[in-house]
Amino acid sequence: MDLLVIYIGLLGSFALAISGSLTAMEKKFDIFGVVTIAFVTAVGGGTLRDVLLSERSVFWFEEVNYLYVILIGTLLAIVFRKRLSKASKALFLFDTLGLGLYTITGVQIGLEYELNHINCMILGTITGSFGGVLRDILVNEVPVIFKKEIYATVCIAGGGLYLILYYQGVPDPYLQICSALFIIIIRIIVVYFKISLPSIYSNDS
Amino acid sequence: MDLLVIYIGLLGSFALAISGSLTAMEKKFDIFGVVTIAFVTAVGGGTLRDVLLSERSVFWFEEVNYLYVILIGTLLAIVFRKRLSKASKALFLFDTLGLGLYTITGVQIGLEYELNHINCMILGTITGSFGGVLRDILVNEVPVIFKKEIYATVCIAGGGLYLILYYQGVPDPYLQICSALFIIIIRIIVVYFKISLPSIYSNDS
Amino acid sequence: MDLLVIYIGLLGSFALAISGSLTAMEKKFDIFGVVTIAFVTAVGGGTLRDVLLSERSVFWFEEVNYLYVILIGTLLAIVFRKRLSKASKALFLFDTLGLGLYTITGVQIGLEYELNHINCMILGTITGSFGGVLRDILVNEVPVIFKKEIYATVCIAGGGLYLILYYQGVPDPYLQICSALFIIIIRIIVVYFKISLPSIYSNDS
Repeated sequence: MDLLVIYIGLLGSFALAISGSLTAMEKKFDIFGVVTIAFVTAVGGGTLRDVLLSERSVFWFEEVNYLYVILIGTLLAIVFRKRLSKASKALFLFDTLGLGLYTITGVQIGLEYELNHINCMILGTITGSFGGVLRDILVNEVPVIFKKEIYATVCIAGGGLYLILYYQGVPDPYLQICSALFIIIIRIIVVYFKISLPSIYSNDS
Repeated sequence: MDLLVIYIGLLGSFALAISGSLTAMEKKFDIFGVVTIAFVTAVGGGTLRDVLLSERSVFWFEEVNYLYVILIGTLLAIVFRKRLSKASKALFLFDTLGLGLYTITGVQIGLEYELNHINCMILGTITGSFGGVLRDILVNEVPVIFKKEIYATVCIAGGGLYLILYYQGVPDPYLQICSALFIIIIRIIVVYFKISLPSIYSNDS
Repeated sequence: MDLLVIYIGLLGSFALAISGSLTAMEKKFDIFGVVTIAFVTAVGGGTLRDVLLSERSVFWFEEVNYLYVILIGTLLAIVFRKRLSKASKALFLFDTLGLGLYTITGVQIGLEYELNHINCMILGTITGSFGGVLRDILVNEVPVIFKKEIYATVCIAGGGLYLILYYQGVPDPYLQICSALFIIIIRIIVVYFKISLPSIYSNDS
């Protein structure tokens, strides 16, 4: 299972690096800026998680393969930048895969550190979504997650499912696979049917 | 005293969560965005303090009641969003209460970790005001603290008073109450009489 | 050598504090805002480095002289703000000195913590350049480093040179002096001849 987590984690970083690169290139950043935004998008969430847990060291200090994967993803995004706008579905899938798994690893690490359940879900959501928030701050935009996307809500739900299954005694690989699949499938449904959170402004003048 | 600190700290989080929610709703964020901004405004300062002190774990990992209070504050802000613009004085008072106490806890924690005096005052100011800075960064505004408000200056002065009283041997509850009251009263005076820092641009062409 | 590092480090903070102050005054921040931006620009990079290395405490908690130097730099920038636009060459030199040395200390600290080579270079670049990124985020601009300046690329190259010399067995003061000088000289050449990174958008329609 651990190897599987690393492989999908690397796949997630790869996709997030591409997504970060494309955002930076839209803003006409130079090559260093593109690499930085790619890096921040891919590792930002996990880094904040590791910084908040004071005993943990940052994950990309321990596992350097993340850096190689991000560099490869960024280079591919630069080379194929014109075509990638047409392959947005593949990108979205990778991105969602990464989101699902990152969220689950965040929840799992929260349990390891004996945080309570709400904090585990917050930690999962931070791990899954904070990279995108940092990306948007660095390119000087209001984070898209606060306005258009509801994926953070999906992360929270997925984290909740993980905790429920965990206390039901579901064994190790199934636990992670079910919760990650839940996040991935719900996100695809939500985006496909353009579901958004109920507006809190609907009855305002 | 410790219980008093927790109660007023929770009250402060409650007020800051409302202030964060109102800011996010002005920007038409979705419900997740509103909750996030509320959370960040309420815990941002204390979180940065705990991250800078490498041996400390994040306070809302230890004391989960902060999370409940923030959620309640956010819900109330959403439900009563139309009326709250009229109750801005009550809000301002809560906010100032929280500011005063957070600053004092920051200074106190700095002393516990044997930081020098300037660092204690910086840590207090960060604890009191950084939540608002993060809120403004996330909604893509120049932090209000740098332009219109002088409360950070008030925090620094309050932190200084705490240190003076501490070395005069003032005992424990009075020490905190005096310094927090000082910050609260000075801030109210400053806002009521619209006092601002002397401009450094006055004699510029 | 250690004393030399501290002296040049203080000189670097001094220059970065002036650069931060000037940026904040252009935006008409009040005096507290100017001090904050100066502080963040001067210590931001080293602080992020120390936070990422979970066992390290923040450097300006340990060595308070940084704070004094930053305050002096900020005061001078405020008093002489009209003349400083004409002395931009002196400023640029100080800034580059600080950049060179900070990058090297970042790489060196990375080696001490037994990070791998890529991570050492990343840590050096973060130490050298993140203060400026934070400054630009706080004044609500797209970080200049991502668009106009190539100094981060110079940092990475200088970090690489440090590692090569280190494994060649170059002894302690020469190792740091050579790598820092390399960064400083290359940056001066790059700015003097207006060299920029090859555009990745050149053949785009």
